[in-house]
Amino acid sequence: MNVNSDRYVVGVDYGTLSGRAVVVRVSDGAELGSAVHEYAHRVIEDALPGSGVRLGPDWALQSPADWIDVLRHAVPKALAAAQVPAEQVIGIGTDFTACTILPATADGHPLCEEFPERPHAWPKLWKHHAAQPHADRINALAAERGEAWLPRYGGKISSEWAFAKGLQLLEEDPEMYDRADRWIEAADWIIWQLTGVETRNVCTAGYKAVHQDGAYPSEDFLAALNPAFSGFTRKLGQELAPLGGLAGHLTARAAEWTGLPEGIAVAVGNVDAHVTAAAADAVRPGQMVAIMGTSTCHVMCSDQLAEVPGMCGVVRDGIVPGLWGYEAGQSAVGDIFGWFVDNCVPASYAERAAEAGLGLHEYLTSLAAEQKVGQHGLVALDWHGGNRSVLVDHTLSGVVVGQTLATRPEDVYRALIEATAFGARTIVETFEAAGVPVEEFVVAGGLLKNGFLMQTYADVLRRPLSVIGSDQGPALGSAIHAAVAAGAYSDITAAAAAMGKRQAVAYAPDAERADAYDRLYAEYRRLHDHFADGGMLHRLRAIRNEASA
Amino acid sequence: MNVNSDRYVVGVDYGTLSGRAVVVRVSDGAELGSAVHEYAHRVIEDALPGSGVRLGPDWALQSPADWIDVLRHAVPKALAAAQVPAEQVIGIGTDFTACTILPATADGHPLCEEFPERPHAWPKLWKHHAAQPHADRINALAAERGEAWLPRYGGKISSEWAFAKGLQLLEEDPEMYDRADRWIEAADWIIWQLTGVETRNVCTAGYKAVHQDGAYPSEDFLAALNPAFSGFTRKLGQELAPLGGLAGHLTARAAEWTGLPEGIAVAVGNVDAHVTAAAADAVRPGQMVAIMGTSTCHVMCSDQLAEVPGMCGVVRDGIVPGLWGYEAGQSAVGDIFGWFVDNCVPASYAERAAEAGLGLHEYLTSLAAEQKVGQHGLVALDWHGGNRSVLVDHTLSGVVVGQTLATRPEDVYRALIEATAFGARTIVETFEAAGVPVEEFVVAGGLLKNGFLMQTYADVLRRPLSVIGSDQGPALGSAIHAAVAAGAYSDITAAAAAMGKRQAVAYAPDAERADAYDRLYAEYRRLHDHFADGGMLHRLRAIRNEASA
Repeated sequence: MNVNSDRYVVGVDYGTLSGRAVVVRVSDGAELGSAVHEYAHRVIEDALPGSGVRLGPDWALQSPADWIDVLRHAVPKALAAAQVPAEQVIGIGTDFTACTILPATADGHPLCEEFPERPHAWPKLWKHHAAQPHADRINALAAERGEAWLPRYGGKISSEWAFAKGLQLLEEDPEMYDRADRWIEAADWIIWQLTGVETRNVCTAGYKAVHQDGAYPSEDFLAALNPAFSGFTRKLGQELAPLGGLAGHLTARAAEWTGLPEGIAVAVGNVDAHVTAAAADAVRPGQMVAIMGTSTCHVMCSDQLAEVPGMCGVVRDGIVPGLWGYEAGQSAVGDIFGWFVDNCVPASYAERAAEAGLGLHEYLTSLAAEQKVGQHGLVALDWHGGNRSVLVDHTLSGVVVGQTLATRPEDVYRALIEATAFGARTIVETFEAAGVPVEEFVVAGGLLKNGFLMQTYADVLRRPLSVIGSDQGPALGSAIHAAVAAGAYSDITAAAAAMGKRQAVAYAPDAERADAYDRLYAEYRRLHDHFADGGMLHRLRAIRNEASA
Repeated sequence: MNVNSDRYVVGVDYGTLSGRAVVVRVSDGAELGSAVHEYAHRVIEDALPGSGVRLGPDWALQSPADWIDVLRHAVPKALAAAQVPAEQVIGIGTDFTACTILPATADGHPLCEEFPERPHAWPKLWKHHAAQPHADRINALAAERGEAWLPRYGGKISSEWAFAKGLQLLEEDPEMYDRADRWIEAADWIIWQLTGVETRNVCTAGYKAVHQDGAYPSEDFLAALNPAFSGFTRKLGQELAPLGGLAGHLTARAAEWTGLPEGIAVAVGNVDAHVTAAAADAVRPGQMVAIMGTSTCHVMCSDQLAEVPGMCGVVRDGIVPGLWGYEAGQSAVGDIFGWFVDNCVPASYAERAAEAGLGLHEYLTSLAAEQKVGQHGLVALDWHGGNRSVLVDHTLSGVVVGQTLATRPEDVYRALIEATAFGARTIVETFEAAGVPVEEFVVAGGLLKNGFLMQTYADVLRRPLSVIGSDQGPALGSAIHAAVAAGAYSDITAAAAAMGKRQAVAYAPDAERADAYDRLYAEYRRLHDHFADGGMLHRLRAIRNEASA
């Protein structure tokens, strides 16, 4: 019997609306119990709790207290569900949405505790999009100066990231900026709460805080943005901690919250998407993991450094130590299907779905699955939420071509599914054209449950799909990191091989359908290239914004 | 008191699903009573009545007996409703859908009476689209030979017209072709039934049977299509009768059907759209009448002959004697809104509309009307039913650009309304660029009831809209023709001035909205021009057709 067969680790996944804890056996990754705790304040978008102070458009905040509550509620519940003695738990790991970032004091207190009525004192959630003007300035200046780090982010950094949000803080609330000794990812802040020690993980530092080749953007560059911004990086982490590393040991206070033993290993913080690669045992070069949910995030390790156009970023050691970690993304995937079902499907379909005992997604999928490739006569651009990769333009929008009076909802639904598959193929081809081979396409995330969608991806990509063997991938990945941090495995790769779960060739492409999709994909690329410059889409958005103002 | 104050005429409008009769006072066009009779066989699309013989795709037939039933039921009912003594009725006029055409014997018997099990023996309704390959051959040959008549039809004749349908008859059922002494528009056939005399009206001969400058296409041309087709025009009318002319007198048999006095004047046959110009008192040069319903037909008189790209046709005396009559069209207008409401609007909207006591069209319109121009961020191409003018391509399809996850049904609904208005503006501008000024835009048809849509057209067209003062325009127009045929007026123009009804400047453009629409229209034209060559849309349709085969 393996020594790890009666040792356990806890993984905690911090999502947008809730946190999930899972208890995992160290020897084989068996998921023995889990629990979810929803954030009391969910996403704070309209007004601050308590004071009711109104927020501007595109703001999105969260409450740190909600995160602590996940430790207090979900972890003990998961432990109880697993029926595992707490003393056999040897470590805990976490992952977080990112860039979700907050201003804190030198001892780790969120500024919103002292200044609850100040919007800028609160953590800015990843989807806080009010720093777009700041991102635009950063990008323009970086391009003008030819900053070497810019191509590492596909040519553009995001308004969601640490520098854009930090510049917004400085310029809109200089007092809070000054009081913020720390500008820290929630991924690292939660580890600080667990260990009492501040650490900064290499993943968010690289992907979200533009840390490349050992340094952040220069003071000179920051001063050119705003003289008061020059010292900004002193609020960030200076020493970075490796993924899978030991951040510290569980404090007595955190032990009380969680019901776990004081002193157990706490892994270095991580990001939900990136940690999922471990859960899928897909951390070797060329294994692209697509976490498909409301949006899709693609992460892949490689031993080669390349500047892939439109990727979100490439970071040394960014997924596992020793390899380059690539990230790309599709802004909206499941979100598009959800939008379609909520807004574009008539009552008659809702009735028939109900009669058949199906949800609308399932009903539309069943109708769409009966069609032959191209039978709907449509092609669409999956840009309803903008385009992250490979165009890096959040202000693009969707296009549907080919509708007739005979077009039915299932036709458009299928075309939208295909459009997202074409978007994924565009990303894969862009990586390969840049010299970064994609050898295996591994799917994780909520959309796995739609088998027709998965088969469509296999056909469109002309390659087999592997699928993760867990429906709580990030939490499992965090548990794997915890096992490494606790010393149960030598590294993430070894731990992932033992504890991760991946079914190879879960969906194999059909040659005939793949050929038919090649023709539709060619139309998608023509449409993509035609609208890629954003000319018309930007003008329509400008007209919209002026009319809405 | 005007001598015509106690004289009446009857107008009968033959639509796609029913016929309508209206009793009208000769002096002032007052509509005193009307009645509708629905065709028992409606549109025959799947199988022949009685025999059950299956029809091919895109077939659409009608039953001549249904048309006679309109005379037997709707006319007496209208007379009763009007409470007018039959002996004071001095004439009857009719209009028909076109090209709705049938094979008949030399004495006017439809071949389907003797051969009810033969599909080609039946009248082919205007929207019978199975003769597209034949139309394609006619167009290719005419272009190759530089036939002078081709530019009179905007460069392309339609599969709906007399020659394409006639060539299909010849090649698919040569026996019926040989037995058809006559190939006659229903518009003329119904007059034959009323008068016992065969006449052929100048309108359908010109617009649908390519009669130009006194002749049909040459035997030489027809023989080049198919040697057996060379004598085809002998089945058509040789002497053409002018619009508003006296076709003959009501027979005893027809008097018995209708309850009208034997011997009264019967006007020369006409087409629903064209006769509406008289009902709107809009038969002077430069008055463009848009009959807006499921599709839109534009008719306009002019004293100038020009070859307008993409028009449906220009015919001397084609609307009123002495002027050139122009026709253009939009394949689908109300059909697009109907399709959208049936297929693209969620149950929640249906519920809210019902709560508000509104139909879905009214509810969506009320929401759309609250928006500012361009606030939805969308632009669409109104090609869901193809594009008649100015591209003359029924195989184009719709495009919607700019959808986001925030796009709501009312946004798309409004964008589709605007798209049809942009399509109308494209037609108007094409006429003017070709040297045919459009001095007044007059709207008739069912879409008149949507005031927001009308205002949108006024704003987009940057011109006031006049509107017809009747909701049974074609039937009123036929009645006006009847009054002319009966000698109550010297010509259609005079009769239309007395009996027609038009409200000038019913909708005036708003300068600010018109300016805003100019920007959106510029995007529409860019999109229009990008997709106009049909490259992508044709490929998508080809893929669709192959997949469906």
